[in-house]
Amino acid sequence: MGQYTAPLRDMQFVLHELLDVENELKALPRHADIDADTINQVLKEAGKFCSEVVFPLNQVGDQEGCRYHDGVVKAPTGFKEAYQQYVDAGWPALACDPDHGGQGLPVLVNNALYEMLNSANQAWTMYPGLSHGAYECLHAHGTPAQKAVYLPKIVSGEWTGTMCLTEPHCGTDLGILRSKAEPNDDGSYAITGTKIFISAGEHDLAANIIHLVLARLPDAPPGTKGISLFIVPKFIPDEHGAPGQRNGIRCGSIEHKMGIHGNATCVMNLDGARGWLVGEPNKGLNAMFVMMNAARLGVGMQGLGLTEVAYQNSLAYAKDRLQMRSLTGPKAPDKPADPIIVHPDVRRMLLTQKAYLEAGRAFSYWTALQIDRELSHTDESVRKEAADLVALLTPVIKAFLTDNAFTSTNLAMQVYGGHGYIAEWGMEQYVRDARINMIYEGTNTIQSLDLLGRKVLGDMGAKLKKFGKMVQDFVEQEGVKEEMQEFVNPLADIGDKVQKLTMEIGMKAMGNQDEAGAAAVDYLRVVGHLVFAYFWARMARIALDKQGSGDPFYTSKLATARFYFAKLLPETAYHIRAARAGSKTLMDLEADLF
Amino acid sequence: MGQYTAPLRDMQFVLHELLDVENELKALPRHADIDADTINQVLKEAGKFCSEVVFPLNQVGDQEGCRYHDGVVKAPTGFKEAYQQYVDAGWPALACDPDHGGQGLPVLVNNALYEMLNSANQAWTMYPGLSHGAYECLHAHGTPAQKAVYLPKIVSGEWTGTMCLTEPHCGTDLGILRSKAEPNDDGSYAITGTKIFISAGEHDLAANIIHLVLARLPDAPPGTKGISLFIVPKFIPDEHGAPGQRNGIRCGSIEHKMGIHGNATCVMNLDGARGWLVGEPNKGLNAMFVMMNAARLGVGMQGLGLTEVAYQNSLAYAKDRLQMRSLTGPKAPDKPADPIIVHPDVRRMLLTQKAYLEAGRAFSYWTALQIDRELSHTDESVRKEAADLVALLTPVIKAFLTDNAFTSTNLAMQVYGGHGYIAEWGMEQYVRDARINMIYEGTNTIQSLDLLGRKVLGDMGAKLKKFGKMVQDFVEQEGVKEEMQEFVNPLADIGDKVQKLTMEIGMKAMGNQDEAGAAAVDYLRVVGHLVFAYFWARMARIALDKQGSGDPFYTSKLATARFYFAKLLPETAYHIRAARAGSKTLMDLEADLF
Repeated sequence: MGQYTAPLRDMQFVLHELLDVENELKALPRHADIDADTINQVLKEAGKFCSEVVFPLNQVGDQEGCRYHDGVVKAPTGFKEAYQQYVDAGWPALACDPDHGGQGLPVLVNNALYEMLNSANQAWTMYPGLSHGAYECLHAHGTPAQKAVYLPKIVSGEWTGTMCLTEPHCGTDLGILRSKAEPNDDGSYAITGTKIFISAGEHDLAANIIHLVLARLPDAPPGTKGISLFIVPKFIPDEHGAPGQRNGIRCGSIEHKMGIHGNATCVMNLDGARGWLVGEPNKGLNAMFVMMNAARLGVGMQGLGLTEVAYQNSLAYAKDRLQMRSLTGPKAPDKPADPIIVHPDVRRMLLTQKAYLEAGRAFSYWTALQIDRELSHTDESVRKEAADLVALLTPVIKAFLTDNAFTSTNLAMQVYGGHGYIAEWGMEQYVRDARINMIYEGTNTIQSLDLLGRKVLGDMGAKLKKFGKMVQDFVEQEGVKEEMQEFVNPLADIGDKVQKLTMEIGMKAMGNQDEAGAAAVDYLRVVGHLVFAYFWARMARIALDKQGSGDPFYTSKLATARFYFAKLLPETAYHIRAARAGSKTLMDLEADLF
Repeated sequence: MGQYTAPLRDMQFVLHELLDVENELKALPRHADIDADTINQVLKEAGKFCSEVVFPLNQVGDQEGCRYHDGVVKAPTGFKEAYQQYVDAGWPALACDPDHGGQGLPVLVNNALYEMLNSANQAWTMYPGLSHGAYECLHAHGTPAQKAVYLPKIVSGEWTGTMCLTEPHCGTDLGILRSKAEPNDDGSYAITGTKIFISAGEHDLAANIIHLVLARLPDAPPGTKGISLFIVPKFIPDEHGAPGQRNGIRCGSIEHKMGIHGNATCVMNLDGARGWLVGEPNKGLNAMFVMMNAARLGVGMQGLGLTEVAYQNSLAYAKDRLQMRSLTGPKAPDKPADPIIVHPDVRRMLLTQKAYLEAGRAFSYWTALQIDRELSHTDESVRKEAADLVALLTPVIKAFLTDNAFTSTNLAMQVYGGHGYIAEWGMEQYVRDARINMIYEGTNTIQSLDLLGRKVLGDMGAKLKKFGKMVQDFVEQEGVKEEMQEFVNPLADIGDKVQKLTMEIGMKAMGNQDEAGAAAVDYLRVVGHLVFAYFWARMARIALDKQGSGDPFYTSKLATARFYFAKLLPETAYHIRAARAGSKTLMDLEADLF
């Protein structure tokens, strides 16, 4: 049931009209040859693959789930075959290093691919998605020998990857993890412990699974400074690089969960499994953070993908479903009732989704472009600037996009009324799938603490000022133009308010760190809206310039921008008040009196 | 997994300290003999039944769901036996008319019973819950003969009831329903049509099921003025009142849905089923509204019940789960990490639930008391006043409590981190169950239109002024006391803002009805907060008076009141802005350009 068509027009708007990526990529020698047509062609093919191959498996994957028997996991019907088609078409290699068999396309193209894959089927997409994270981690931290053995197989998609962090007693708090790594005589390590919540930890899609496992060396200091990272392959590669001996890492069970049923969430038991150290001893968290940051952006794209597909379906339903008459008189007098899209609150539900969706796309594609600049711009200061912006905004992408996606998929479901609650229509699955994105890869509370504590207060606001400078430049450039007042004034206003709020919280947190903890979640939502207001103002600028073109796309864009400023940005009025209310009312009550 | 203990202490606080029900009931001859001890004893027994009999079936009901085979529906394991215990103990009769075998207790006691039943198991509770709705409808509109045949069986619980409104092409828009009722020679009608989403439409809990069905007479005018209500029993009572001939109403299938798996959501096919008219021809909607209003309050209690049980579990987890150190230094230095209740944002998540929960209880119990006054106060002006307040606030109970319950159950789940997403822990079920409450018995958008359009603007704000008067009286009485400033000032402020906002919207809506439709959802949230601010201020007054008693209950109550005013009430700053932003940005865009 349902439908998904890749939103190529809006993707092209963001890539070419908003971000001008063809020119931006010319400054990156690695990607200087890529033109807009090539990107469009790749995305068109990807969209076709997502609609035709991956999307039809979404509902069956949810209904069947994964099946576990005696250490073996079978993914739902069709998952394995679709993955093989994905591998055959070369999609895993899209943004990988040509030195290891990759196609060398920019991160931003891969990001757009992942938006579409997630729209089509989040549970399926997690199999290649985690592999790509493992690729990035090994590419950044593996030895040349490790890269030679593992990267070509992961790049081709023949093997998949996982990240094994969580243990039964620790998720957020990796400092207390217990898995042990004892050195073997041959330079490898014997790793023992239990990992839980390992997505794609065991399955039948690929010939081998490469686990990246956090564990402690015997002499490791306690806490996060005593954690090392290991490669633990399911099958140890033999001298020809083929899957050889079965390693002592096995799936003990899979979880029954609210959503993403098609992806196996595994308990992984390591019983003296052979592993090889990645990077420096006791520096495992640093190495893993490469993978976690990529994963956090990836989770943002999961949120975005679900928002898109839920919007498409609720929009189609709202045009089709006849129910009640418009309050201002019949709009379809020849029919027994009007289509529900005539009703103001149905429009509110649709436009909320649309406004979050399109700003989320602009923001996340822009961030992906910054990653490309960070990775390969010739000018070090540009690389540094891009890296700072990516570091600052990664928690915002993760938390703001996934919170908005939960809101949006719920609104999409609500548009369906009672039918939204029925599994057959497919809408409630989007809500259930979207829910995990607010939890894993660091809960959204953790993201907010990362943003406020580490990224903003940690450098006295230096990175935030870089983003603020972009906003300010835009405000100064556009603020003099009358037609932009309705966008620039509220943008300037929220920019000022963020600055003031940041200083206030910073001052209070110096005296009491709980003040940062108490304000963080509200603060992240305010910053998220600053970012969205900035991108909506920029998009409105383009739409104003082109609305005479006769293309109704720009009329729609402009109307959505106006809706955003009128109806969604005001949420900041709430969160600024809540953030300023401080920690006292949170912390006063003794735990026993709750 | 999980736990549920009836929150008797807080229920008693609301009933006796806040509402002083013993004295209030003395003014109602029908209930004048009931004292506080009796009520407490009934609630204690009910709580025990809920914890011990109904709650243990909650998770198994979710996992098993209902089974359909060839028109027969089996409820999950244990449901039938628990229902028999419920009947044997006389619970269905609690608030029913003694003339028909009822125990004649006030609505407010039944309301408290339903809070607990819903905490324990919403899906199970819908079986007796819908029966009680059918009881109320027949009690109000049935003929003496109909009452004599049906009410004793429904009151005893031997038979259950349903409401059959929705059809495949109409849910909200009953005006276009198609089911037909042709007169038979014997005074009955032959009813033909298809009804969907019929909760408890078929099951194995009771010997007979009494369906209340909306259908059209042959000469009925079109629209909502041509709908009549019929009793359609599954088995037609024979001359002894026992279930006799099988009637032509059959379950065609049951839905697979997001939650409330333990309750059968049925497609009911009527093929010339025999039915008997209830009330006047073509006045069926009026009669059904008795049932729908009761059902809307009932849905509010579903939201409240889920909020309570989810809060209890997330609180226990937050005290137990060790993860990270407090930002202000270790609080449990002897343990590997601190319990997560030390973290400000975990406390925000807990206190949000607690503040919504306790205000929701105060508000809904107070409303139930108004229903008792409406039904049996000796003074007609008191009955009228109470009826007006109930009419005004029914949509607020339904929508505000269920929206808050969805927020709250999601926060409870979030406290569990990744474990919250796993079915075994039981938290994600609360989210899935809570989701339907925002949809059925009139979506929350419909509730907001009922509030703003019919209840507020429909009488030029007369009913709203009655509630406003209560707020104003409290503000005048308490505003002079220094210790109450922190509560009374924001209460007075939101009271003024509601008044102003109502006038603004009213003015705009006179020119354009879409202005009401555009503002309604935001408006309902603002009114909901006015109500909650009022009850929190009243509860704070009591807690201030008694905090010297040494009972830490009042310390907790006061801290929760302060949290509410600091962190939740500010949400109104957002919704007032959004409501004032009007309809233009919603209505401008043509449907084809979305």
